[in-house]
Amino acid sequence: MTREFLYDQIKSKGSYLCVGLDTDPANIPAHLADHPDAVFEFNKAIIDATLDHCVSYKINTAFYEALGSKGWEIMERTFAYIPSTHFKIADAKRGDIGNTSSRYAKAFFEIMGADAITVAPYMGEDSIRPFLEYEDKWTIVLGLTSNVGARDFEMQPSGDILMYERVISTVSTWGSPDHLMFVIGATQASEFTNIRKICPEHFFLVPGVGAQGGSLRDISEKAMIKDCGILVNASRAIIYASEEEDFAVEARAIAKQYQYEMGSYL
Amino acid sequence: MTREFLYDQIKSKGSYLCVGLDTDPANIPAHLADHPDAVFEFNKAIIDATLDHCVSYKINTAFYEALGSKGWEIMERTFAYIPSTHFKIADAKRGDIGNTSSRYAKAFFEIMGADAITVAPYMGEDSIRPFLEYEDKWTIVLGLTSNVGARDFEMQPSGDILMYERVISTVSTWGSPDHLMFVIGATQASEFTNIRKICPEHFFLVPGVGAQGGSLRDISEKAMIKDCGILVNASRAIIYASEEEDFAVEARAIAKQYQYEMGSYL
Repeated sequence: MTREFLYDQIKSKGSYLCVGLDTDPANIPAHLADHPDAVFEFNKAIIDATLDHCVSYKINTAFYEALGSKGWEIMERTFAYIPSTHFKIADAKRGDIGNTSSRYAKAFFEIMGADAITVAPYMGEDSIRPFLEYEDKWTIVLGLTSNVGARDFEMQPSGDILMYERVISTVSTWGSPDHLMFVIGATQASEFTNIRKICPEHFFLVPGVGAQGGSLRDISEKAMIKDCGILVNASRAIIYASEEEDFAVEARAIAKQYQYEMGSYL
Repeated sequence: MTREFLYDQIKSKGSYLCVGLDTDPANIPAHLADHPDAVFEFNKAIIDATLDHCVSYKINTAFYEALGSKGWEIMERTFAYIPSTHFKIADAKRGDIGNTSSRYAKAFFEIMGADAITVAPYMGEDSIRPFLEYEDKWTIVLGLTSNVGARDFEMQPSGDILMYERVISTVSTWGSPDHLMFVIGATQASEFTNIRKICPEHFFLVPGVGAQGGSLRDISEKAMIKDCGILVNASRAIIYASEEEDFAVEARAIAKQYQYEMGSYL
């Protein structure tokens, strides 16, 4: 998916919402839980219900891997079910030596049909390069994450800057803003103005609103650029909006609320 | 697997070899390539042939994910096929917020039956903690990797030390040497003496001998401790020792050479 196409979707919907499909069988409403294909049916219902209000879906690979090979297969079918109008992110946090990263790129870009994959930067350029080599696919590198553990290494000094600043400023030279993004956690709003200075043109994928407590207004005011430049993800706040039979209706209502608020910032 | 059991295996075999099953269908010998279950049959033959000469197998998840859900299922069967005498490593380089890392831990420790998983440290303590909570399972955190990209962030200054030194010294306080290891690349032999000073008791998983060019002698002289404390991985050098029908025989011969050399250092 091109940056132009993504921005067209954002403009036409007035939304930069990404819905996170962190589907856990333990949280599937009772009336669906006994379905032989419960996780896929749940995802399908969430996608159908939220489609008009978001521009992206993010599939957290961990939740599917925890179901074994059947989970991997559900992940494949879920990616296939998401319409091509929506930006499909494999939230996989992969990254290894080049020879191995090229297999992860194949797995997610070619087999799984994702538009984008999240990648961990620790191992450096040759661990990220194989993902960047795919035209029309996106690499989303961890910058400053939403969790408390961000303090342990990301926010440690590295020369006269911080580690995450080094990561963002270095990695941003490896790929153009047309196919490279950064993960910046919504809980790190105080850093957003600074981060925008370091990379004024790249999109940010921003998890951490909703269950993790980040503020949509804060992020939007500090990080938005002329073609939006942010995708904000909410997972649990949307997909588990209700534990009852009306879960999809409630998911849609929450997605619509985000869309409404986002529309006012665009 | 306990540290005592692992060391007993190392002593009794005179080997601290880990065989890396980075199996690529493109490299499977012609006579096997058309088999409907070629990757598993190849793995089975390699395991049968090398079992007496190694103490561990490392499965690189990328190579299986590149085959889609069928690959994930082959990975499950391969883990199940490895005897419980051998230390089974999922080389998965996972790591995410705690809520997600706990799913990866479940996927690999409970469903896949691995003894150990490799984990990326970038996101800090809560991304690693869920793995450490499993008793008798091992978390193997990236320290200093074997690839050239190690220079980009791992070897950058962090205060008055280097980033990888900060990672090793910090993470080593989170888990005991009885269930926490570090990945230290064999190509970084000049750093081994220093790293041993930072963490004198933890095991190191050392990839990068063979195809990547690291020296077994160097590593062993600099990093070995009283209960060995190193597992040295070779992947391509063993599993692709021959492209012919004798691939398993040749794999065994190479594994035996490593065992012979390792025996002299123990």
